[in-house]
Amino acid sequence: MGFQTQASAETDHADEPEVFRVHRGGKLTMHSTMPLVDRESLSLAYTPGVAEVCSAISEDESLARAYTWRSRLVAVVSDGTAVLGLGNIGPAAALPVMEGKAALFSEFAGLNAVPIVLDTTDVDEIVDTVARIAPSFGGINLEDISAPRCFEVEARLRSRLSIPVFHDDQHGTAIVVLAALRNAALVTGRSLGDLRVVVSGAGAAGVACTKILLAAGIGDIAIVDSRGVLALGREGMTPVKDEMARLTNKAGVSGSLSDALAGADVFLGLSAGLVPESDVARMAPESIIFALANPRPEVDPAVAHRYASVVATGRSDYPNQINNVLAFPGVFAGAFDANASAITENMKIAAATAIGDVARDALAADHVVPTPFDPRVAPAVAAAVAAQAVVDGVARG
Amino acid sequence: MGFQTQASAETDHADEPEVFRVHRGGKLTMHSTMPLVDRESLSLAYTPGVAEVCSAISEDESLARAYTWRSRLVAVVSDGTAVLGLGNIGPAAALPVMEGKAALFSEFAGLNAVPIVLDTTDVDEIVDTVARIAPSFGGINLEDISAPRCFEVEARLRSRLSIPVFHDDQHGTAIVVLAALRNAALVTGRSLGDLRVVVSGAGAAGVACTKILLAAGIGDIAIVDSRGVLALGREGMTPVKDEMARLTNKAGVSGSLSDALAGADVFLGLSAGLVPESDVARMAPESIIFALANPRPEVDPAVAHRYASVVATGRSDYPNQINNVLAFPGVFAGAFDANASAITENMKIAAATAIGDVARDALAADHVVPTPFDPRVAPAVAAAVAAQAVVDGVARG
Repeated sequence: MGFQTQASAETDHADEPEVFRVHRGGKLTMHSTMPLVDRESLSLAYTPGVAEVCSAISEDESLARAYTWRSRLVAVVSDGTAVLGLGNIGPAAALPVMEGKAALFSEFAGLNAVPIVLDTTDVDEIVDTVARIAPSFGGINLEDISAPRCFEVEARLRSRLSIPVFHDDQHGTAIVVLAALRNAALVTGRSLGDLRVVVSGAGAAGVACTKILLAAGIGDIAIVDSRGVLALGREGMTPVKDEMARLTNKAGVSGSLSDALAGADVFLGLSAGLVPESDVARMAPESIIFALANPRPEVDPAVAHRYASVVATGRSDYPNQINNVLAFPGVFAGAFDANASAITENMKIAAATAIGDVARDALAADHVVPTPFDPRVAPAVAAAVAAQAVVDGVARG
Repeated sequence: MGFQTQASAETDHADEPEVFRVHRGGKLTMHSTMPLVDRESLSLAYTPGVAEVCSAISEDESLARAYTWRSRLVAVVSDGTAVLGLGNIGPAAALPVMEGKAALFSEFAGLNAVPIVLDTTDVDEIVDTVARIAPSFGGINLEDISAPRCFEVEARLRSRLSIPVFHDDQHGTAIVVLAALRNAALVTGRSLGDLRVVVSGAGAAGVACTKILLAAGIGDIAIVDSRGVLALGREGMTPVKDEMARLTNKAGVSGSLSDALAGADVFLGLSAGLVPESDVARMAPESIIFALANPRPEVDPAVAHRYASVVATGRSDYPNQINNVLAFPGVFAGAFDANASAITENMKIAAATAIGDVARDALAADHVVPTPFDPRVAPAVAAAVAAQAVVDGVARG
């Protein structure tokens, strides 16, 4: 229809930067799946016909899966406290990121997704709010919620809701890191159990990566935050860091990142803290460096390549981009296909295995993960996740 | 993409009733407005490009209007307590109605709309929940929330939020009723100030219709609920009914609906309570009967036509259908065009005037409102609402 004064049409914006121009009016649009053009279509989609569908769901709520859009609908939920590298910018300013995320769900897995940005940063209020709107959705993707609140928000929503709840900054990153690391180990002729890993950063991604790597059988991990290696009794510890200290550092290393890197096989940078070349040089031969800070990797790729056999970053202009988009669309698609009540640790590991397997037909040091636009990835992840949901007993058929 | 096992493709449903078949997979779909097919498009719509847009909105939140989809996005919010004639069927069973409503916003006004069904019926929790998700949306359409809670929910959200909040069961109906009644008065040669109206039903629609009719200059109104004419001190009164009793019944009628109808010019049925022909016969000559209960009007149209000059119903298979879809798409489109902080009473009256005016080129007793599919209606309503927003000082440009 032509009568709306779209914001984009109000004035001429020819001179605005391209990134603003493409954002005019936002990045999402929704439509009816059936045309409502006459009395007959209206009486089917709306009153009086819709009452029959409502009555049926009222008798048997499981029918909502077949007859509403929520069965393939993700809420992309954020409180705007940890947005990209910008930090706590609030819900309105976070919205363009959430719209982009929703667009990726649609473009990469054919799912529907809606941004929900919250005018609260209180954990109780976030949990209550998301739980109360949950009947509108098939799954909850938490996004850009700052640590350590993100851990509690996710844990409480997982226990309260019987639909998938997935904090992508944790698990999306963790899945793709595991996929890449399995292939990097293969390329360098190591087994996962032999690897000694140093994780730089004890935030959402650092914690989740450590957990999935341990679950996948990585030999030993030391986590380093801004004060050094996590250890019980050290200054600046939190309950989550205490838990991680208990699970990690079998080798008993202590001190700084530099100390931890001595002889390490893998550096996993999730912190934006730059690593001097002298520290990189202390790692084991044929090391593996994943420097994922954006836009500036913790180790300059040129420096990393002087020492490491496999280098990965978060950047699209280098090989081996660790990009969450390899994981989250297929993870939710698979969970929805299985009508899963949750996303288990095994389903995440299955997703990582599927992503890594897609790269194996051209496996090389500069190709340990598929490119983000490889069309085989999302279907492979979805199939693996759905199959694992059945194995884990969370599929409701 | 072909890999999803859509619910609709799982099995053959050729033998299911058509209304269920058209609901398979739900009635809404969303998409990205820009293709995300390569590194360049991804880096504009998502990281790293999106950070520039986020930063700009963080500095000046008013920019969210230009650069996010929320500026034309309606939340269709329900707690599922008063759904169609089905009553309190809960959030999941209410979802097909809310999807239909969202589809109508899209089809009739080109707006985006998302159903939000709530897992709570507590007024405080509803208000808090909607307020916390409000930064995601440009306006809130409340739907199918039972009276009297709906009045408090709307009033509190209106005072708490600076975006349009509109309970359609109240105001959508009221707007279209006023539009029809103005034209019915014209057709029967009366002025609004001379009309004596009997409203049957003191729920959401009854209260809202009474308020808008009084604001538009209707002479006198008596409201009747299941116990008779509303009057202070009568049994079964509530705070809202007390308020309405104070505003209405200048003539001082008392007793039953039958008593109130004696000599009345207009019957407005919003209650589903059937009216016997003997009561209809007591109305003034050339009366006006709006019997809006669905599917069974309070007065059988054949009976009504024996006495009344103008008859309207809520049904699509009779002339003069009082259908909210004549109002709500244009009301929100106009409010968004004006960037209105609220929808004022004057904006509702302006919408009613615009709807009625569209019917005037073919004004007749069986054409006091346009048909729901008249494409002139939504643009006319939007223009009138936006202009009135400026007059009322709620337009933010």
